Amino acid sequence: MLTNNADLSLYDAVPHLTTALQGPLKYLETHLLAQLPEIEHWFRQQWQYTTAPFYASVDLRNAGFKLAPVDTNLFPAGFNNLNPAFLPLCVQATQSAIERFNITAFRVLLVPENHTRNFYYLESVATLGDILQKAGYEVRIGSLLPELLVPQTLLLPSGKTLLLEPLIREGYCVSVKDFVPCLIILNNDLSSGRPAILENIHQEIVPPLQLGWSTRLKSTHFAYYSQVAQEFSKKIAIDPWLIDPLFRNCGQIDFMKKTGEQCLADNVQILLDAIQQKYIEYHVPYRPFVIVKADAGSYGMGVMTVHSPADIFTLNRKQRTKMSATKEGQKIRQVILQEGVYTFETIGPKEAVAEPVVYMIDHFVVGGFYRVHKARGINENLNAPGMHFEPLAFVDSCITPDQNKAPDACPNRFYAYGVIARLALLAAARELAQLNE
Amino acid sequence: MLTNNADLSLYDAVPHLTTALQGPLKYLETHLLAQLPEIEHWFRQQWQYTTAPFYASVDLRNAGFKLAPVDTNLFPAGFNNLNPAFLPLCVQATQSAIERFNITAFRVLLVPENHTRNFYYLESVATLGDILQKAGYEVRIGSLLPELLVPQTLLLPSGKTLLLEPLIREGYCVSVKDFVPCLIILNNDLSSGRPAILENIHQEIVPPLQLGWSTRLKSTHFAYYSQVAQEFSKKIAIDPWLIDPLFRNCGQIDFMKKTGEQCLADNVQILLDAIQQKYIEYHVPYRPFVIVKADAGSYGMGVMTVHSPADIFTLNRKQRTKMSATKEGQKIRQVILQEGVYTFETIGPKEAVAEPVVYMIDHFVVGGFYRVHKARGINENLNAPGMHFEPLAFVDSCITPDQNKAPDACPNRFYAYGVIARLALLAAARELAQLNE
Repeated sequence: MLTNNADLSLYDAVPHLTTALQGPLKYLETHLLAQLPEIEHWFRQQWQYTTAPFYASVDLRNAGFKLAPVDTNLFPAGFNNLNPAFLPLCVQATQSAIERFNITAFRVLLVPENHTRNFYYLESVATLGDILQKAGYEVRIGSLLPELLVPQTLLLPSGKTLLLEPLIREGYCVSVKDFVPCLIILNNDLSSGRPAILENIHQEIVPPLQLGWSTRLKSTHFAYYSQVAQEFSKKIAIDPWLIDPLFRNCGQIDFMKKTGEQCLADNVQILLDAIQQKYIEYHVPYRPFVIVKADAGSYGMGVMTVHSPADIFTLNRKQRTKMSATKEGQKIRQVILQEGVYTFETIGPKEAVAEPVVYMIDHFVVGGFYRVHKARGINENLNAPGMHFEPLAFVDSCITPDQNKAPDACPNRFYAYGVIARLALLAAARELAQLNE
Repeated sequence: MLTNNADLSLYDAVPHLTTALQGPLKYLETHLLAQLPEIEHWFRQQWQYTTAPFYASVDLRNAGFKLAPVDTNLFPAGFNNLNPAFLPLCVQATQSAIERFNITAFRVLLVPENHTRNFYYLESVATLGDILQKAGYEVRIGSLLPELLVPQTLLLPSGKTLLLEPLIREGYCVSVKDFVPCLIILNNDLSSGRPAILENIHQEIVPPLQLGWSTRLKSTHFAYYSQVAQEFSKKIAIDPWLIDPLFRNCGQIDFMKKTGEQCLADNVQILLDAIQQKYIEYHVPYRPFVIVKADAGSYGMGVMTVHSPADIFTLNRKQRTKMSATKEGQKIRQVILQEGVYTFETIGPKEAVAEPVVYMIDHFVVGGFYRVHKARGINENLNAPGMHFEPLAFVDSCITPDQNKAPDACPNRFYAYGVIARLALLAAARELAQLNE
């Protein structure tokens, strides 16, 4: 029966949990596996009430004793990092997604970030374009780059080419030359604001402009996430803390002018105390830490690890500068304090730290990969591409749990990742629904 | 990027087209590939008008100059023959299917054929049960076997076990012990009639009882298929004959009593003449042939190849017996005459003949395999399991066509198979819709 076996040696390339304290997670995985029909039934109902965003990626952290989302990206990049064996899964989910909200769609315009030299990102755009094309749509790429006046062909390291075309606005309609799309798929997180050329058009844009980082806040997302985690935990009878990172948000902050620091430090202490209490309850022998990050930040920018309130006052100039601006120089005025979740997944003889990123299209989990970082610690943000960064595609899908295997066997661990990622997706769906109210 | 490469050596195991006359098929494949967005758009519209059956498998024949369905099974077996790499695709499609027509479904009862020793079939039931379970449902198997009074566990060659439980009927409800299903999935083609225990129940049965072979006729299906093929061919501007096998049906026939033979022979001649005419038009240098098969037959039983009307009158006793009854001894009273489509796909040094079988769940193509038969000819029915039969899973999905490859490269040939199979699925959907009128 096994006629097209995936390269089995790759199974060795799955990160291992290096903490001895796997008890609670194994408990969680066992629990999720045992209650699979109830969980899937619950999700089906949720997607009836609340429509999933078009797509999303969710960064998870797996501490062995806790598995939680730490970021939910509604304009995901990194599609090129997924296992190509699961490309059909992306294609099928895309068909479902577009059928669901725009059955007549025929021509799709993809609007990416304004990068022309970030090949990591451009490969993702090429893969996404390929998925849309295979799903049966005519696809063109319309760029927001102001300096792009004529179409530009980019040659990518994979050998693929990408044709960026300037957007044309006529009346209530956006197009590229000789191509009027029925649907615009946004893959630009709008960190630098909502582009005028996309305002007030009659074509549908997914996700909508309001979900860009010019208006969206991580603190709103995690407030919804907590609500979702509470409901879900009640449903399957677990402590929500096992899947939910504690968080607090502060008022205005200016790291350069050093205003708002006392409030931040106070909140760090409150959060550390709360984490310490849970660590005592679960006999976790580690030191609590807090992640401070821009409330509207992306690309892993404007993120720092804090172990005590004092850390806030002793930042050096370089650290302050780093915390002052995020992508495209956008000023950071508000931060979110989030419970730091250790990553105890490491890989290779040098024990490089790994964190899973799960991808969803519509409400379907279509794959994921590990962010492996050779130069970062188990308490640091790994979303920092560079020479020490390596993506490692999941070897299994997240939707083939196997009751006959151990609860922490690959397909079951990936299933658990898919469940927690979908909880974050549901939180995002509620953000989206609130916009439409 | 290629982190989970399928075993490339398997690509050598894809059957090769051995006819020199590939011109028209390459033309067809090129055409389908070039018009992909139009084709997918057309299908999306069709599935809006007409709901796809829950699942189906379609037998295709690839003659190089022609690619056509020859049988559409609405209670498919053979799920165990699919490439396990595409199991997630089956899971996702099943989720879509059940969400579409019974969002509240939680417990699913699978009702299989009454086989207890046909391990080919039982492995398929196990795989199907696994797909349903992974899709998030509680699954039990309820058997129609009259002699099954207590649950029976079967151990399969794959090492899996299958628990068959006797059906219980109470009022308008069917169940197995301590398990009342929300949904009943039928995997029994009802060749021997509609079982009383499933009549007039309040639970939903998919596919409905009326689609079983006790009422369904191949001639009805192929009449719908011709209609679909006409519409589709007009849409993409091809000669429908390239994708549609000509057919005729006859009145009553009794091969043992030799009644109705003249009518059959006359129709064979008419059909052979019609095929000859198309062969001349397309410069096909082969001898036309006709397949005579039971109009309500399944399991590849009651099928024969005929090259001239005289063949009908010169059948020996063994051949007559073979054409008199189909599965479970059901008498053949009506036959369909179908244009024989050569299979020019062969594999291996001994050039074993191969024909593709495509699987669909809801309106999604989820995979397929080649039926490889070492002891059958290019003009014979290959649906004859036995020691010379070997399944060969498709190495690629049918939904990842690649515009950068040759039109007859694997992913593109499989895409073409998926398109033609979906046309047959649409014909079945129209059969289903007519039942509901």
